[in-house]
Amino acid sequence: MTVEFNEIAEVLKRILLQYGFNDDKASTVADLFARASLDGVNSHGINRFPFFLKTIDRGWVKVDAEPVKVGSLGAIEQWDGQLGPGNLNALFCMERTISLARIHGIGCVALRNTNHWIRAGSYGLQAVDQGMVGICFTNTKPNMVVWGGAEARTGNNPLVIAIPNKKEPLLLDMSVSLYSYGKMWEYANRGEELPFEGGLDENGDITRDPLKIIQSELSLPAGFWKGSGLSIMLDLLVSLLANGQTSSELEKDEYGNCQVFISVDLNRLVPPRDQASIIERVIKYIKDGKLMSGQKEVRYPGERTLATRKKQLKDGVEVDAKIWNQILGKVNH
Amino acid sequence: MTVEFNEIAEVLKRILLQYGFNDDKASTVADLFARASLDGVNSHGINRFPFFLKTIDRGWVKVDAEPVKVGSLGAIEQWDGQLGPGNLNALFCMERTISLARIHGIGCVALRNTNHWIRAGSYGLQAVDQGMVGICFTNTKPNMVVWGGAEARTGNNPLVIAIPNKKEPLLLDMSVSLYSYGKMWEYANRGEELPFEGGLDENGDITRDPLKIIQSELSLPAGFWKGSGLSIMLDLLVSLLANGQTSSELEKDEYGNCQVFISVDLNRLVPPRDQASIIERVIKYIKDGKLMSGQKEVRYPGERTLATRKKQLKDGVEVDAKIWNQILGKVNH
Repeated sequence: MTVEFNEIAEVLKRILLQYGFNDDKASTVADLFARASLDGVNSHGINRFPFFLKTIDRGWVKVDAEPVKVGSLGAIEQWDGQLGPGNLNALFCMERTISLARIHGIGCVALRNTNHWIRAGSYGLQAVDQGMVGICFTNTKPNMVVWGGAEARTGNNPLVIAIPNKKEPLLLDMSVSLYSYGKMWEYANRGEELPFEGGLDENGDITRDPLKIIQSELSLPAGFWKGSGLSIMLDLLVSLLANGQTSSELEKDEYGNCQVFISVDLNRLVPPRDQASIIERVIKYIKDGKLMSGQKEVRYPGERTLATRKKQLKDGVEVDAKIWNQILGKVNH
Repeated sequence: MTVEFNEIAEVLKRILLQYGFNDDKASTVADLFARASLDGVNSHGINRFPFFLKTIDRGWVKVDAEPVKVGSLGAIEQWDGQLGPGNLNALFCMERTISLARIHGIGCVALRNTNHWIRAGSYGLQAVDQGMVGICFTNTKPNMVVWGGAEARTGNNPLVIAIPNKKEPLLLDMSVSLYSYGKMWEYANRGEELPFEGGLDENGDITRDPLKIIQSELSLPAGFWKGSGLSIMLDLLVSLLANGQTSSELEKDEYGNCQVFISVDLNRLVPPRDQASIIERVIKYIKDGKLMSGQKEVRYPGERTLATRKKQLKDGVEVDAKIWNQILGKVNH
């Protein structure tokens, strides 16, 4: 089914007000969730909203908490999220990096004691909207095996790189695991194997069977040993810079994560560059070649986000009726 | 065969002096190559030295050129490498980031018109030796397919993350392709298939046959679509920040690359953190679990580098006799 963007944002806001958010914060959080769905990212849009409410009920997320600065060293700052809503903390910290980058050319904020930031790409787009390159990464609960191991001992630690571009921003928004559990369910529901090895079964054997991985909860890193190394380092970077919890400490309940945010003030770098032509050149080059067997096109990171947004603003946002009704059921009348 | 570390450094220096390097630069470059071999990274140590000399003969690398600052914006600077030796330029730029980080907490340098930096990890270790977190990445000639494509249309764009640690620095030094060609040759020489899909054959079909990939020169990104997106973004980041050439422009001859260097002054971040205990916790956690079938251990990035270094300082550096003799043959007597 489809629902108008404004209706989604309004319904979510009403529920958030019921949950004790003040008017401003309720609007902002509702907007972040609604925009994720608008951009076609329901997994981190309305599909995630019921779980977000649960994390408030459980006391992981403190509705009123605001981040507190704990350290400042020129172009880099450390903040404590006070276990406030992860999306509000992330939005705040990316905004701080933008202010820092306006002074120092580059700005960095390390954040501890925060919560799941929901759609990682939001904060990349936030930087891009102000002409900045935006980079951010987070740790998560251990939900992925390290290479060689047969237990989930590192997070899939999402990484975002966003680059401003007139036509459409470039947005890499990826977790380090090869397949998300959502994607594995899609294959499982079609009775298909994964195209590539995606995890381990309960015996620690590498498999392409999505159901076995869903059962074992042992997904493999993208690039196996390479993604494993990258995830370990991202976890260490965020926890060392923010002086906060590592993935290993999020094993039981996932709250109190660490994140790092970086902005670079691209437009003020000299000499004035023709950004558009550099980006166009790369896009043309990657799209121009012969295709891999069975593939229809080469896409750049973030391609079609704007097209999806435009279409859904006009025609309504495609949502899962069951989830939407579940959300509607939470509105007090 | 084994050769003493000092002998390697001295022989390389003599050859570099013959090639017109001044005494200081010859020492530094010789040391970088010799240390790579000392750390067990011959592929970017003495095995790469003959090709380094060729890039000088071809006029790609200007022995005398020194980097020139073209832009400065507080904590970020842009430099032009003037096509000087890639390793000297990289060493210089990482040192600049360290100076910037001592002032601003974080320092960033974007470098254009440089050359292959040889062992990427060198510059991470350089930062770590001064108590800094070091991050750097580069673009390369197109040597890897983008996901969906069947031509080499992006670089394997190596990425380094280095974290200081009393016992042994953590060092991620990875290209974005799943297998290096050196690694594929090892499997080919043993008549074995690759454990995972590593590239395309000449028809654009995904394969585990190392010889077919060596022939097609179409290696796959680590994590397929994920590594592909990451490589595209790393190429854009370095070329936009440095205002220099993208991978696509390095297709014919690989010179004039772009690189980005970042340092963070970990020790001055407040409150004083117990780095060692955070790192120990992560290392213990990843090593503690059950093992994947067929695997003997879980390793952290950079593990054993110091042990290899110590052993080879004492017992001599393990080198390929053919390559060493080829190098010895270049010394004028």
